[in-house]
Amino acid sequence: MLNELSFAEAAAAIERGDITSERLVRDCLDRIEARDGDVQAWAFIDPELALAQARACDQASERKGLLHGVPFGVKDIIATHDMPTGMGSPIYDGHRAGYDASCVALLRAAGAVILGKTVTVEFAGMAAPPTANPHNLDCTPGGSSSGSGAAVADFMVPAAFGTQTAGSIHRPAAHCGVIGYKPTFDTFGLHGVWPAAQSLETLGMLTRSMDDVELLSAALLGRPAQLERSPVAAPRIAICKTHLWDIVKPETVEAIEIARETLSTKGAEISELVLPDSFDELVPARDIISSYERARATAHEWFNHRDLLSAPLQRGVAKGFAWKYEEYRHAMKVGAERRRDLDVLFNDYDAIIAPCTAGEAPPDRNSTGDHTHIGMWNLLHVPSYALPTHKGPNGMPVAIQVMGRHGEDAALFDVAKWVLEQLVPA
Amino acid sequence: MLNELSFAEAAAAIERGDITSERLVRDCLDRIEARDGDVQAWAFIDPELALAQARACDQASERKGLLHGVPFGVKDIIATHDMPTGMGSPIYDGHRAGYDASCVALLRAAGAVILGKTVTVEFAGMAAPPTANPHNLDCTPGGSSSGSGAAVADFMVPAAFGTQTAGSIHRPAAHCGVIGYKPTFDTFGLHGVWPAAQSLETLGMLTRSMDDVELLSAALLGRPAQLERSPVAAPRIAICKTHLWDIVKPETVEAIEIARETLSTKGAEISELVLPDSFDELVPARDIISSYERARATAHEWFNHRDLLSAPLQRGVAKGFAWKYEEYRHAMKVGAERRRDLDVLFNDYDAIIAPCTAGEAPPDRNSTGDHTHIGMWNLLHVPSYALPTHKGPNGMPVAIQVMGRHGEDAALFDVAKWVLEQLVPA
Repeated sequence: MLNELSFAEAAAAIERGDITSERLVRDCLDRIEARDGDVQAWAFIDPELALAQARACDQASERKGLLHGVPFGVKDIIATHDMPTGMGSPIYDGHRAGYDASCVALLRAAGAVILGKTVTVEFAGMAAPPTANPHNLDCTPGGSSSGSGAAVADFMVPAAFGTQTAGSIHRPAAHCGVIGYKPTFDTFGLHGVWPAAQSLETLGMLTRSMDDVELLSAALLGRPAQLERSPVAAPRIAICKTHLWDIVKPETVEAIEIARETLSTKGAEISELVLPDSFDELVPARDIISSYERARATAHEWFNHRDLLSAPLQRGVAKGFAWKYEEYRHAMKVGAERRRDLDVLFNDYDAIIAPCTAGEAPPDRNSTGDHTHIGMWNLLHVPSYALPTHKGPNGMPVAIQVMGRHGEDAALFDVAKWVLEQLVPA
Repeated sequence: MLNELSFAEAAAAIERGDITSERLVRDCLDRIEARDGDVQAWAFIDPELALAQARACDQASERKGLLHGVPFGVKDIIATHDMPTGMGSPIYDGHRAGYDASCVALLRAAGAVILGKTVTVEFAGMAAPPTANPHNLDCTPGGSSSGSGAAVADFMVPAAFGTQTAGSIHRPAAHCGVIGYKPTFDTFGLHGVWPAAQSLETLGMLTRSMDDVELLSAALLGRPAQLERSPVAAPRIAICKTHLWDIVKPETVEAIEIARETLSTKGAEISELVLPDSFDELVPARDIISSYERARATAHEWFNHRDLLSAPLQRGVAKGFAWKYEEYRHAMKVGAERRRDLDVLFNDYDAIIAPCTAGEAPPDRNSTGDHTHIGMWNLLHVPSYALPTHKGPNGMPVAIQVMGRHGEDAALFDVAKWVLEQLVPA
């Protein structure tokens, strides 16, 4: 079925004329029809609207761009001019932004079909979403880009947007077993993306293939896509257990150890990185920044519609308004200082591998799992991937997290692609 | 008339019970009624809506917060749930966002009356606004926060929001003769502020009194207001002519020279700062970043409503899409490196004084003036003030620009207040 093609494979097949956008979109819609009653990955789907976009691509006299005719999922905190944007909140049920977020407009301009809106946790926060993990419906898909993770993993759409202020791209990627890419902070513009915390939030994507990341990034940034890249030789990779190693589960320990051994055998220069104790401050600092900024970003809803906010979000906003400004300033300083420290450490490494989630997706639909391992790196603003390289004791996906130097997303892409090829050979 | 009170004076008078919010708002509305046919500072005013907010403050059993009952103007790229937000563009004529920007919600929560929406240049860009300079109707008020500058200068409202990616706060402040405050980049959250360029845009304010900056900042940041501050003694101030000195007009040369002499007499340690040649790259780098990011932020309008964009904006967006990603990346690196350099330079100074605009407001309603002198500092992300300290040959206001160290807004406030008191004694 065409819905199993990756984004890049589908784009190439359409370009060659082997398949039509309409057939591809129909197969995606059929998959959604068959499965979404259980998975609940989609907040909004209008099959006719999706098919009309696909037919327009098929009938166009020339390709619109790199993404011509391929369907894409948009997290439901991201504005679309022709579909509602609900933010996962009853306050914005049926809300029409009236315009496309810049990321959506740029994908459309490059020819992508906006298939629909994927379920987001309420305002990309912590409340449990309706979505299930497609590998086991009793498990959480992770959050907050829950629908994007589940839809991509379940072959409903080849790729989708996610956003991350703590672990909201990599956690659903890890729990659903797809690739998560969070670029360097401030890489893709956030116009039309409902904010969670402005000093942390980053727009990224969930895909089933590394090439999809390259293709979609190229379209968003207005640069050529380089799918044929120079092979990576002997990358210098640091294994970093972090100060949180005691709270990871055996399957994550195993995923990291297998990565260490396999990549060393395949020619990587592996070393162990023990972060200075000052990096222990990252977790509490990120929490302060996130809740201080989220409270302010949620000011309108807090002061006008408090009863319609979930209990976890109400607690989060109350906590955010309770922080003293000086505490927030101190946390921001911790982030800035550790960013400088990490940049120096990256003189010695091409990438750092660290735990992603604690372990497999928890068998609990009322949780979105733990973001601590991801969040500490998120405050460092470096580009990172969640790569699904392993399986846990219940057969559920387990990921490793791979970080690169600030701004060096292209170099990290090459290393991450090499890492994934070694650990999960095609 | 009460409309001549500063924001802080009005807040204190209401707190003491000396005046009502309704009287104050009525005086502002009367001034607008009398003058706005000529000045055209307001994009939207609903007197009944403003008065209803004022009466609610007067009738409240307790003060809502620091800003209780005082009217404030909101630049019309900033979302308001109860007023249209038109972005200065026919595309968004009558547009209703459906929510308050976080900055608006926070001011309301602190008791401010949202008086109305002030005219913005189309999407905070470069096209000429309808607004006139209240000191001379044949002159530009500057842009893009044109209505905020004109309304505050003309005593229609005590203070208003502005946003700046190049010179959009300080240019109208300078040309209209009010105080402009642009905080450290990323100080106030931008949720609900229509974006121009995400790596440059900063929310700030235009006021007639330094204390207003403190009061409004405290409300936005959730910290106590410190209106009684320790006196500044012998601040270390650098005079920086910059590489653009050749293109400033005599009145700006005069404003800087008078500042140098007066502040030295009053006890400041004055030195001359000659920036390294590498700082010359800031002007072209800022232009590249601004147009690259603006093109993407305007993607929806560009691809769907191009005919409704002004000719200057169409040229700007086309230019922005033409930059190569590597050129943008280089420009971003220039900004980051010069920020590090400047931070080291600030070891020796408490503040830097530099030209603000080239000179007086040009006698041209079809221009918004030059932003070069302001834009170079804006890329450096440091906090800054436009202080109206001088008059030009035509009796129009001339400002100096005062910069502080990144993140040290409180320290800069003290120095800027001292500078203004020395140069423009009460």
